[in-house]
Amino acid sequence: MDNPLDQLFELLRIPSISADPQHKDDIGRAADWLADKLAKAGFSSEVIDTKGHPLVFAERIVAAQAPTVLIYGHYDVQPAEPLALWSTPPFEPTIRDGKIYARGASDDKGQIFAHVAAVSQLKDALPVNVKFIIEGEEEVGSPSLVPFVEAHREKLKADVVLVSDSPMFAPGLPTLTYGLRGLAYMEVRLRGLGRDVHSGAYGGAVPNAAHAASWMIARLKDEMGWIRIPGFYDDVIPISPQEREMWAKLPFAESEYLAETGATAAPGEPGYGILERRWARPTLDVNGIGSGYQGEGSKTVIAAEAFFKFSMRLVPDQQPQKIAEITEKYLREILPPGYQMEIIRHHGGDPVVIPLETPVVKAAAEALKEAWGKETVFTREGGSIPIVSDFMRVLQAPVVLMGFGLESDNLHAPNEKFDVINFEKGIEASKNFLRKLPQYV
Amino acid sequence: MDNPLDQLFELLRIPSISADPQHKDDIGRAADWLADKLAKAGFSSEVIDTKGHPLVFAERIVAAQAPTVLIYGHYDVQPAEPLALWSTPPFEPTIRDGKIYARGASDDKGQIFAHVAAVSQLKDALPVNVKFIIEGEEEVGSPSLVPFVEAHREKLKADVVLVSDSPMFAPGLPTLTYGLRGLAYMEVRLRGLGRDVHSGAYGGAVPNAAHAASWMIARLKDEMGWIRIPGFYDDVIPISPQEREMWAKLPFAESEYLAETGATAAPGEPGYGILERRWARPTLDVNGIGSGYQGEGSKTVIAAEAFFKFSMRLVPDQQPQKIAEITEKYLREILPPGYQMEIIRHHGGDPVVIPLETPVVKAAAEALKEAWGKETVFTREGGSIPIVSDFMRVLQAPVVLMGFGLESDNLHAPNEKFDVINFEKGIEASKNFLRKLPQYV
Repeated sequence: MDNPLDQLFELLRIPSISADPQHKDDIGRAADWLADKLAKAGFSSEVIDTKGHPLVFAERIVAAQAPTVLIYGHYDVQPAEPLALWSTPPFEPTIRDGKIYARGASDDKGQIFAHVAAVSQLKDALPVNVKFIIEGEEEVGSPSLVPFVEAHREKLKADVVLVSDSPMFAPGLPTLTYGLRGLAYMEVRLRGLGRDVHSGAYGGAVPNAAHAASWMIARLKDEMGWIRIPGFYDDVIPISPQEREMWAKLPFAESEYLAETGATAAPGEPGYGILERRWARPTLDVNGIGSGYQGEGSKTVIAAEAFFKFSMRLVPDQQPQKIAEITEKYLREILPPGYQMEIIRHHGGDPVVIPLETPVVKAAAEALKEAWGKETVFTREGGSIPIVSDFMRVLQAPVVLMGFGLESDNLHAPNEKFDVINFEKGIEASKNFLRKLPQYV
Repeated sequence: MDNPLDQLFELLRIPSISADPQHKDDIGRAADWLADKLAKAGFSSEVIDTKGHPLVFAERIVAAQAPTVLIYGHYDVQPAEPLALWSTPPFEPTIRDGKIYARGASDDKGQIFAHVAAVSQLKDALPVNVKFIIEGEEEVGSPSLVPFVEAHREKLKADVVLVSDSPMFAPGLPTLTYGLRGLAYMEVRLRGLGRDVHSGAYGGAVPNAAHAASWMIARLKDEMGWIRIPGFYDDVIPISPQEREMWAKLPFAESEYLAETGATAAPGEPGYGILERRWARPTLDVNGIGSGYQGEGSKTVIAAEAFFKFSMRLVPDQQPQKIAEITEKYLREILPPGYQMEIIRHHGGDPVVIPLETPVVKAAAEALKEAWGKETVFTREGGSIPIVSDFMRVLQAPVVLMGFGLESDNLHAPNEKFDVINFEKGIEASKNFLRKLPQYV
């Protein structure tokens, strides 16, 4: 096999943006490229069409009685806008200071390709059966993956599912993620007028949808950080004393966290630390809002319409469907008179916590420890990988979240990057894990 | 003189959009066109350069001892976007159902050109001295006009200032406007982060500027319509019982008002009627808000920044400067912790009420009555014409607001129109006023 870094660069050069129909051909190219690389590693590989973007499936069965691991990842990436904020073009991967800068470098091409490189390097010494399922719709809510998994339980059957789409807690610190927040993403569109009107002639007498949006957002989450939707917190399971103790030992400094995000404060629910608020507390964030005149200077207009998009991050045992329902009910209650409202439900996903006693979790912790030469830490993650709960439910197999990225990798933002060392250690950890698995399954 | 309607169409075809630097040449063409038409009517006319767009000044002195009227208007227009909503192109004037459709038809080319047509028709029978001052920056806050007026008091000296940039109360109902609301237009830009971050990884622990904007807007004006800025209402003069009685007689139906705007309710300060809320109560409206992802579908981002633009409409004796100061102070008080705020002050203007006993107001009422064959009604207007208070202050002359447009003319919106009958009656009323003036000054 060629230098893994050169190969990764080939993949990063393909602008496989799943949200943008103009990149449909690039999506196909990325899928074909991965299937080809896996075929060269001795796998039987296929590119499977779906209603949306294709799935890459590949498998190599070394022995019927050997343990089987299913490795999941995604080859699609987020849009790269705003392009002006990138130091180097998003689809021309560049190494600066030991970091690979490119859209998808960390999320998720670099991480999934570490496993492809691992099995390529093991080649005929592959100690367990390995299957890959790599999708092209993760950044648009994975609409085709779950139906495929449900329809192909036997094909995907495995003793453990390995997912690398989560961050390490700190540079050089091997990390296993055992919890993910769930997601319920919604959009509210408000209309107060049949047309935009002059704010002088009409101001004070007609509905203003921008105000209605603001009033409603202010009633969804207050200035303290509390979500005001009745019943929202009902199913939240508090963290255990053991978890609190374990997290307190993690190398975390609020000042560094603030410096890294450019924030001057970390506002949120009083009484909870930053880690707990990110990992084990649900939240609600407006992801976008728009109404009226947004250009330079001033325009004296009252806009007919306003919209806001918001997402709720959920923790066990909150259920996205139930949360969306109580949110929708609450939105109808707090809608001020004089406005028409349309509510759109975007994607959702269940929160997950995987017990630390699970044997394959121990195998993964050992594999990581050997690669980095340090004890593995156990963390949860604030983000959502909705497919994880689906794998657990449909395949009835534990999921191991072995992340090689960093929080500071600028996922979904300009100047996304992936540390070269994390790519190299990731390949090593992947090989370690496959070698150890027979003792733990 | 050619058919006035054909001439107006020539002016409407010039896209003299003052806010857009790409239309600088069109601005110049519109100014030249007006100066040329006034020269042909026997005026000495000039196009005067400013730091911004040029002013058209013209005068015709019939006798040193005759009364002098200064006629003000503007030849610039609002941007035409969104173009897709126009039934016919904004700069190709079209008559449908007796209405001239074009950007600027009513605001203000049709209205100012009615006076140009009037003096052209009177030609050598002009009974009074007439001066014209026509600006090209009204839609961008008239930055050059006030300095010009202050520097040229003698040149502009007049016994009365005539302004036609306000609406008639109803079709066919001659209307004199004796009050205008003032304006204080501001913008708030908030920053909570150094960069956009992933809403999963960071949600619950970092500032979200879209929420801060919403909380602040909700604290500026509540759901009842009350403005919460301390001291905001201090200088508001309530309307007199006579005004209340006069307005109650106006032909106003809330149902028609709602139908015309496409609103299903007219929310606002409890205890005040719709006319009073538009004309004699101050208000606050967000004119634009934006943050985060505004495209199709969903993006899991917490945006670093958010902004909102808002304008306050003021009534006597509120002062724009003082209102802007208390608003700025309040904004700093309600700014949640963790956000940087930039406050931009856009344009402002004083509110105005002109006493109904003023002789030239009576002359104008007579002139309108004769043109339309109906008693003139006296109204205030919700919009602002900041230059009116400046004319009163600097020239120490009363201002007559003789409007020929209608509220339903779609000012600042797609499909702006001007009724042909209002253009024709406007020319007649203008001639009547000039003929009557010697008896009233």
